[in-house]
Amino acid sequence: MPVPGPGYSITIRVEAPPSASAAGDLAAAVGRAGGVITAFDVVESHADRIVVDLTANTHSDEHARDITTALEQLPGVAVRKVSDRTFLIHLGGKIEISSKVAIKNRDDLSRAYTPGVARICQAIAENPYDARRLTIKRNTVAVVTDGSAVLGLGNLGPAAALPVMEGKAALFKKFAGVDAWPVCLDTQDTDEIIRAVQLIAPVYGGINLEDIAAPRCFEIEARLRDLLDIPVFHDDQHGTAIVVVAALRNALRVVGKELSDCKIVVCGAGAAGSAITRLLLHKKPGDVLQVDINGIVHPDREGMDPNLAWIAEHTNADRRTGSLTDALVGADVFIGVSAPNLFGADAVATMAGDAVVFALANPDPEIDPLEAQRHAAIVATGRSDYPNQINNVLAFPGVFRGLLDAQANGITDEMLLAAADAVADVVDGDRLNASFIVPSVFDSAVAPAVAEAVARAAAPAR
Amino acid sequence: MPVPGPGYSITIRVEAPPSASAAGDLAAAVGRAGGVITAFDVVESHADRIVVDLTANTHSDEHARDITTALEQLPGVAVRKVSDRTFLIHLGGKIEISSKVAIKNRDDLSRAYTPGVARICQAIAENPYDARRLTIKRNTVAVVTDGSAVLGLGNLGPAAALPVMEGKAALFKKFAGVDAWPVCLDTQDTDEIIRAVQLIAPVYGGINLEDIAAPRCFEIEARLRDLLDIPVFHDDQHGTAIVVVAALRNALRVVGKELSDCKIVVCGAGAAGSAITRLLLHKKPGDVLQVDINGIVHPDREGMDPNLAWIAEHTNADRRTGSLTDALVGADVFIGVSAPNLFGADAVATMAGDAVVFALANPDPEIDPLEAQRHAAIVATGRSDYPNQINNVLAFPGVFRGLLDAQANGITDEMLLAAADAVADVVDGDRLNASFIVPSVFDSAVAPAVAEAVARAAAPAR
Repeated sequence: MPVPGPGYSITIRVEAPPSASAAGDLAAAVGRAGGVITAFDVVESHADRIVVDLTANTHSDEHARDITTALEQLPGVAVRKVSDRTFLIHLGGKIEISSKVAIKNRDDLSRAYTPGVARICQAIAENPYDARRLTIKRNTVAVVTDGSAVLGLGNLGPAAALPVMEGKAALFKKFAGVDAWPVCLDTQDTDEIIRAVQLIAPVYGGINLEDIAAPRCFEIEARLRDLLDIPVFHDDQHGTAIVVVAALRNALRVVGKELSDCKIVVCGAGAAGSAITRLLLHKKPGDVLQVDINGIVHPDREGMDPNLAWIAEHTNADRRTGSLTDALVGADVFIGVSAPNLFGADAVATMAGDAVVFALANPDPEIDPLEAQRHAAIVATGRSDYPNQINNVLAFPGVFRGLLDAQANGITDEMLLAAADAVADVVDGDRLNASFIVPSVFDSAVAPAVAEAVARAAAPAR
Repeated sequence: MPVPGPGYSITIRVEAPPSASAAGDLAAAVGRAGGVITAFDVVESHADRIVVDLTANTHSDEHARDITTALEQLPGVAVRKVSDRTFLIHLGGKIEISSKVAIKNRDDLSRAYTPGVARICQAIAENPYDARRLTIKRNTVAVVTDGSAVLGLGNLGPAAALPVMEGKAALFKKFAGVDAWPVCLDTQDTDEIIRAVQLIAPVYGGINLEDIAAPRCFEIEARLRDLLDIPVFHDDQHGTAIVVVAALRNALRVVGKELSDCKIVVCGAGAAGSAITRLLLHKKPGDVLQVDINGIVHPDREGMDPNLAWIAEHTNADRRTGSLTDALVGADVFIGVSAPNLFGADAVATMAGDAVVFALANPDPEIDPLEAQRHAAIVATGRSDYPNQINNVLAFPGVFRGLLDAQANGITDEMLLAAADAVADVVDGDRLNASFIVPSVFDSAVAPAVAEAVARAAAPAR
């Protein structure tokens, strides 16, 4: 059953009688309809009536309508207006551009614009590296999408992807002081996306690819890394991989296992699943079984693309075949970035003792975390309403802060691994336990730690 | 002789003896070397010495070095450091991105980012027009260049053009609250520029083309206007044309002439010159002669591109031929957007009585304005150190404010003419005179007046 949440918070303005019982009746009606009241504000008070703003978490449009109807049916109550707080904060967009220089008089104008700016242009023309010093390139990242895989919603196109890219830009600034700008491309052609990013690159010190569907995303990232002299990072791949590797390191500390002894099932072979496996392999796990909708990936499977072929070659030492349930038998770790409700507690019971289950499909995990807990020692999800949320926000702001600070010309797996260690190390031994394997997304120590680790790893690569 | 200006302001930190005469000696030395002191700050004072920050306007690198040398030669004086104030304000770039929403706790995150943002994405996917309501598209303009005609400096390329685009973005925000973002394209191929702008367009409510060389700029603008459902405005063309037409209207009020009686010489047939003529023709002037490096444009001239052919067809009613000096004989108005020092006072003397001379080539005008004044009733330039500065800042912020407010799908010459009238009307009859035909660039009444006029003209075109 869906849970009411702040992402679906509404504010209902109602007129009600001024009696002592009326307020209680309003709250009770919302509660009976399944809403969770988070604020009750009397905005007007008259002899014959009060006007109240009732704010409540709901779980859907329909649920919001049910609550409104419940209120309207109370005697003497009239609903004036229902506002959706999520829509309200999106009005006019979530980011804006500010000038860092005062332009108050003609002297200011002469320096920030013509004629003074001409000398800055000439300096950069003579020494292109000065763009990193004298322009926004020093601190600016493009958040690039084609809108082909927006959140878990699918192919919504570039305009509908913009609110996500704006949110990402807001997070970049909030957590790491990085100026990130949305680039929503009106094409889903691989060559065109690559060329467009190449053409806009002069303004940016890094490229964050976002919500681009697999397998297109692999080719786009690989070719852009070859073409550009700035780092290219596909967050759905590497952001997720960094946080998963960090969480896994801490989870294994809690259960007292070594990665080199662990059998790991990675479910899903899209952007995130493939990147998780590729990053994990650097740490030499016991074995990895990659599973997708067609079962365990192995070299003899038909119809494999280059990504799957590479994975088949580097995982599954015993050349196993079979389904996800087959793969889980005896596994120490399950990492899912795939689809909702794939298995139940019974399957977890077939895993090795002290099993670790990361069920990261959003919004509904591969297994209900409460079910998984029955047999697993540690459970993590992508959701904010359970412990151990695996959230990319722990990685991408600090990663780009470090890359920009180091003026890096590219990005390597060593930098990603350094970022993962930094995220894991923020959880010190005193706080580490089965319900706290990753830091809070609001822990302000995370981004600076990640930035420093990435910059240190990037230094020799400049 | 070049004039020291704030675009070339330096701050020199010197150690000097603490004697009463030392300060005077410092100032005198700077003055003798031709510098103009704008600030004198004692930053340290000791028994045996003082440390002073001397800020002075200079006119070139060499001039700054001469001043520094002059100071070093004073007895007991040592120069510690010379900083260039224009470079200082450019460090790290001139604009930044800010979040308009607070992200302080998990509820904020749930609304501005996942899971709440998913509903905003879905709303836009269902109704694309909602992008104008729920994203930055509503207030955001791309400032697009290929770096092929940066200021008067020529083809410096996209990275070196970035400081100008950043300055433009700062001005957009300062004067009209518009969020403008630099797009510096790493190509000078017409088809690639057009395609790149088309691909990035979903994020923007308008496109401002900037510093793109003629004649490429004409085709790029025309084709983008056909392809996109947002306005496309090449500022070097239309921004200049709007302010020139405004200034001319007011100049003719001062000298008491009607445009329909005037013979006008437009010198230069690049982006600005062509756009000025095209906009002027809507106002039915007596006649226009367009002059370029090959003389007066007429239909029988060889090697003309489509732009020049159109101009030849619509100007020069008497099919005149000849040089700029020939064209000036009997002309009421000269408008130059071409090259420095093309003619002298003698040529102005051959113009009609009460001649109007707009010598707008930057930084050095077609004729020294002091020379022009000898025979002309009104003189305007593009420079900030003479009266009547013709500056695009009077047009572009208000134009885009109006276009965005009207959610315009395109831009018409009627909107440009409305903008010109609005700029002219800010100078009321009491203030209008030969030295004040356009408002100050810092007059805060200009952008709102232009915005309102453009939005009104745009309303029927939605």
